[in-house]
Amino acid sequence: MAGNSFGTLFSLTTFGESHGRALGGVLDGCPAGIELDIEAIQHEMNRRKPGQSAIVTQRKEPDIIEIYSGVFEGKTTGTPIGFAIHNTNQKSKDYSHIKDSYRPSHADYVYDKKYGFRDYRGGGRSSARETASRVVAGAIAKQFLKDIKINAFVSQVGTLKLEIPYQKLDFNQIESNAVRCPDEATAEKMEAYIKSIKKEGDTIGGVITCVAKNVPIGLGEPVFDKLHAELGKAMLSINAVKGFEYGSGFAGIEMKGSQHNDQFNSDGTTKTNLSGGVQGGISNGMDIYFNVAFKPVATVLQSYETIDKEGNKVTTQGKGRHDPCVVPRAVPIVEAMTALVLADFTLLSRTNKI
Amino acid sequence: MAGNSFGTLFSLTTFGESHGRALGGVLDGCPAGIELDIEAIQHEMNRRKPGQSAIVTQRKEPDIIEIYSGVFEGKTTGTPIGFAIHNTNQKSKDYSHIKDSYRPSHADYVYDKKYGFRDYRGGGRSSARETASRVVAGAIAKQFLKDIKINAFVSQVGTLKLEIPYQKLDFNQIESNAVRCPDEATAEKMEAYIKSIKKEGDTIGGVITCVAKNVPIGLGEPVFDKLHAELGKAMLSINAVKGFEYGSGFAGIEMKGSQHNDQFNSDGTTKTNLSGGVQGGISNGMDIYFNVAFKPVATVLQSYETIDKEGNKVTTQGKGRHDPCVVPRAVPIVEAMTALVLADFTLLSRTNKI
Amino acid sequence: MAGNSFGTLFSLTTFGESHGRALGGVLDGCPAGIELDIEAIQHEMNRRKPGQSAIVTQRKEPDIIEIYSGVFEGKTTGTPIGFAIHNTNQKSKDYSHIKDSYRPSHADYVYDKKYGFRDYRGGGRSSARETASRVVAGAIAKQFLKDIKINAFVSQVGTLKLEIPYQKLDFNQIESNAVRCPDEATAEKMEAYIKSIKKEGDTIGGVITCVAKNVPIGLGEPVFDKLHAELGKAMLSINAVKGFEYGSGFAGIEMKGSQHNDQFNSDGTTKTNLSGGVQGGISNGMDIYFNVAFKPVATVLQSYETIDKEGNKVTTQGKGRHDPCVVPRAVPIVEAMTALVLADFTLLSRTNKI
Amino acid sequence: MAGNSFGTLFSLTTFGESHGRALGGVLDGCPAGIELDIEAIQHEMNRRKPGQSAIVTQRKEPDIIEIYSGVFEGKTTGTPIGFAIHNTNQKSKDYSHIKDSYRPSHADYVYDKKYGFRDYRGGGRSSARETASRVVAGAIAKQFLKDIKINAFVSQVGTLKLEIPYQKLDFNQIESNAVRCPDEATAEKMEAYIKSIKKEGDTIGGVITCVAKNVPIGLGEPVFDKLHAELGKAMLSINAVKGFEYGSGFAGIEMKGSQHNDQFNSDGTTKTNLSGGVQGGISNGMDIYFNVAFKPVATVLQSYETIDKEGNKVTTQGKGRHDPCVVPRAVPIVEAMTALVLADFTLLSRTNKI
Repeated sequence: MAGNSFGTLFSLTTFGESHGRALGGVLDGCPAGIELDIEAIQHEMNRRKPGQSAIVTQRKEPDIIEIYSGVFEGKTTGTPIGFAIHNTNQKSKDYSHIKDSYRPSHADYVYDKKYGFRDYRGGGRSSARETASRVVAGAIAKQFLKDIKINAFVSQVGTLKLEIPYQKLDFNQIESNAVRCPDEATAEKMEAYIKSIKKEGDTIGGVITCVAKNVPIGLGEPVFDKLHAELGKAMLSINAVKGFEYGSGFAGIEMKGSQHNDQFNSDGTTKTNLSGGVQGGISNGMDIYFNVAFKPVATVLQSYETIDKEGNKVTTQGKGRHDPCVVPRAVPIVEAMTALVLADFTLLSRTNKI
Repeated sequence: MAGNSFGTLFSLTTFGESHGRALGGVLDGCPAGIELDIEAIQHEMNRRKPGQSAIVTQRKEPDIIEIYSGVFEGKTTGTPIGFAIHNTNQKSKDYSHIKDSYRPSHADYVYDKKYGFRDYRGGGRSSARETASRVVAGAIAKQFLKDIKINAFVSQVGTLKLEIPYQKLDFNQIESNAVRCPDEATAEKMEAYIKSIKKEGDTIGGVITCVAKNVPIGLGEPVFDKLHAELGKAMLSINAVKGFEYGSGFAGIEMKGSQHNDQFNSDGTTKTNLSGGVQGGISNGMDIYFNVAFKPVATVLQSYETIDKEGNKVTTQGKGRHDPCVVPRAVPIVEAMTALVLADFTLLSRTNKI
Repeated sequence: MAGNSFGTLFSLTTFGESHGRALGGVLDGCPAGIELDIEAIQHEMNRRKPGQSAIVTQRKEPDIIEIYSGVFEGKTTGTPIGFAIHNTNQKSKDYSHIKDSYRPSHADYVYDKKYGFRDYRGGGRSSARETASRVVAGAIAKQFLKDIKINAFVSQVGTLKLEIPYQKLDFNQIESNAVRCPDEATAEKMEAYIKSIKKEGDTIGGVITCVAKNVPIGLGEPVFDKLHAELGKAMLSINAVKGFEYGSGFAGIEMKGSQHNDQFNSDGTTKTNLSGGVQGGISNGMDIYFNVAFKPVATVLQSYETIDKEGNKVTTQGKGRHDPCVVPRAVPIVEAMTALVLADFTLLSRTNKI
Repeated sequence: MAGNSFGTLFSLTTFGESHGRALGGVLDGCPAGIELDIEAIQHEMNRRKPGQSAIVTQRKEPDIIEIYSGVFEGKTTGTPIGFAIHNTNQKSKDYSHIKDSYRPSHADYVYDKKYGFRDYRGGGRSSARETASRVVAGAIAKQFLKDIKINAFVSQVGTLKLEIPYQKLDFNQIESNAVRCPDEATAEKMEAYIKSIKKEGDTIGGVITCVAKNVPIGLGEPVFDKLHAELGKAMLSINAVKGFEYGSGFAGIEMKGSQHNDQFNSDGTTKTNLSGGVQGGISNGMDIYFNVAFKPVATVLQSYETIDKEGNKVTTQGKGRHDPCVVPRAVPIVEAMTALVLADFTLLSRTNKI
């Protein structure tokens, strides 16, 4: 309840600070009998890893997963899957610019107020490094879900938007460029733009769109735990996320009901899908799709004024190896969280009827 | 876990169908010692009630709250507060247009698939009538929170936007018009527009903005249960909501980090508040503000084609007394859910330190 | 989390004080499609009801259940079942002997310390009247479980023990006497003894034994949520319970492993059942049986010394209509809690494998 | 919800199999600011460790704790404490006697039925080796609780009972002998008896008594989460436990109310303490004490008949290094679980009042 667990039945608890000894987690409730592809898990980790291209942070984190339990003779046993990712790089660097002052739009200040002090090294628990554990669990969830296909991709960087509807995109192109935008022309523009931002020592925001196909009818619980409400929470729990919309989203506001309603085909599918695959909080068998808004990373490699613990003004120089734009590396995180939500509701849906 | 509870410590469980015998809930974990103002609860109920103005549904639901437990000699006792709202109006009407066919963009179809059958009267559990229970609990949460001031208002109807920043609005004007938009000129336009939409037998979407002031520093838990993630889930769990954004939200995407960062004053407040009062999932003492997008209500009073249980095409006429635009009546619901989230985190924040 | 909910998937939340307006609860997660026998629920309520025989309290509580939601056309819908039992008898009696002083071995003192004040009427929330709500939910759980047969009975009153092993008892005899002991000779002795205790204005403890037959293999979760651990918690949560043992229980202490081990038959059943139907926290298909120890009721109809809020000594006379021995009326409560535990684990067991 | 977590606010999730790569856990919700004494944690681990005396198993498990997160500059940070204990000894031994047949009164059979297969090495997840993780978390809980003193000790082995009331025992003597019985004469008899049992290749049951002193008034939640109900669940979740009683326990059955009631002193303490420090599920400031019954360990070093997966009879020889009596090593486990329960309720009690 201190907020480090996610999911009711397919439930992940994570631990670990950015520069502590190790990060990791426990995935409880994963059903027995999944033939686990460890390489597929490591593959997802590598998609999230720093240093994978010129437009992401150049930090070195090998991010090798160690699985401690819950897998025997290649299969999940139904018991909790404990895992860790050791930090190889956590030696005491120079943190004086973080230790004694508060970086603007970071969590330094609120951690100090909430807990009385903080592990300031690399942001401690507030670092997005925590999401490495989510990617491990999400990769296992994907293997459990099997038929459900989850694809996330970058659909906006700054003002550069991918204008093609997702139905016309080739998801096999997502990994073909460093931005993870499945349209080559747009990807090139985005990449060039991120490089220019990086040169300025600045950062920029972006949008990730996620599509889940082959989701069976009936996932999601009415009222508070609606499928899209859990997806929203999952996405908003990712570092730097400021907004979430599904189906018609914010654009749906301006539509009339007579335009917005999705008419049925005789097989129960719908002619349009402004609902985004969810009706009343429950999946209806159509594609689930949603957008996730990421703010620009707060760490800029520029000089800035801020305050220290006593409220004195100090001038500091942003440094370190940070992402100029977080969305390319956040794609596997969005997919992982989506997989966790769908895995949880898949198990829960087995209990709806006698 | 079947999704009818919200909150960990300050926890609401609701029950009830649109046209069942009663709706209600249990609020567990409400601290002892609150001098409960029952009229203030009924006042919130009346803000949500049908029939309150010309632009909302003209259904008659008196919505009288009965409190069964947890209050003694005018004060909360620390034991669960059970309450009910009896439906006075649930007589068997003509539901043939709902019973045997699936209304587009409603939950009829997915309920049948998920549960095998459904209480079709007025939408059953999927009806927004369930939110009456939330308003009761939220009104109690408001009384617990005391110093925290939560104000929601309508900031967009269709394409009509309230262009004034919230800081310049007089929240005392919210209740002065039927739309619940605190700017008279905009409210008038919105009201006229909703009336025209109603005349067409159509519906229109809208946006509610919510502002929470005087929130102490330290509410929200890092990682999964971030303050804004729970707010997002809370909002997305309200019927017809398609999107959520806080602080700079979707607009923040297009900003650079150097513009987006909120610089500190020496007292720990910030000069700007693009963060929306939350850093790393934890309140920082600044105003919390967010937008909630509502789609147009699915029930249009027009003739439409749909399918029956066997997949046959049927033509149906939308009827009943429905809201042409849901946002005016959703304002107290948004406030209630905000209060529930803040009450829960307020209790949880008492456990952060030794 | 304030302790008024029980169960993870098949989850009951209760509310209500002894002399408040109503008691009741919400049963969430009950699967759709159970053809609900309302009379069977009322029948369980009547087994628990005061005034049913000469050896129980003569209070009058009609205990009529009102079901508000979650049932449609005679079947559960999968949505929460809200219900209430209105108190018809809660008029302000003379509570001065409770209001201003603390009854020994009651919860009066700790409620005042924990919450600052208390609803003193009839014990408020600490009254065993709360268990009425459990019996409603347990009766629904029984109908869900169907093939599993749960029988509880009185096996000890004071020093009077039923010495016949449960396998040789006819459970059809349980309801044939006021004590709910399925051996006529023992029941008669117990009944006479309870009457003599009552005449003294005193009370006496007892034991209830419960047997669950036809429990499928695989219920219960390893480690913390072992089947017998949840049963133990369920029983210890009933008012006046001081101990729980299952299978060989406390007697098993004195046995050697070579005697205690249950040898297998070739079909996986065991020749003996000292394990009590549970291995490693998981049901093994054999009968589950356990004992629940109840202390003597604290309210004695005698004069006693105690203290008031200021710590002054006061002399008080116990009065009211109380049970001289709680076990006859607690039999349906033990069964109800057993049913709730088994229903919850039945649902959970659907998620163990892919 | 798959049963590998314990506690609501001070919450432990464990992972790990007996002969897997590592065991461990995540302790979430531990408040910030505890100056953590790591040696004290290791000391508790050593009390549980195999090979510590002649009357326990001679297996070698160094049981060195590695703490991965949640501690910085010697203090808890309020973020989750991840930890692991690597198995150094998990090489593939000869498990043919376990792999292909089911040991009586072990969990082998039910794991196979529940999950489809099992990690058979050393009992896998069903091994009491899992409790090592509980001892780590319990040791941290003890440091949080500070003023509360928890002492468990062996009070019975087979038919040998410690007849001295706990008030007259010197708890400093608990660690002075291998049995962990604080009376030297009794301890000697118990030790000799366990040795004789060991020589027979057999095992014997026992009782652990636990006493918690200085528990503040107000811990525990009414109704389902009563303090003693959670303690009962905690104890029953320990391997080999068959029964739990607190205060007067099973002996209280035979008492009359007039004898059993604890009369108040003017300061709110009670003259007697048959209630065991808990009234209505809430601590009353008096000593909390309870008994935990352990069955004889199922693994006997004798030849026995059992069945294989196909139901064929097989004759097997028990082997390995096992405890002839589990209670001496279970003492720190009982204390650990008690500490976890009290820590959780301590945090929860901060939320009772406004």
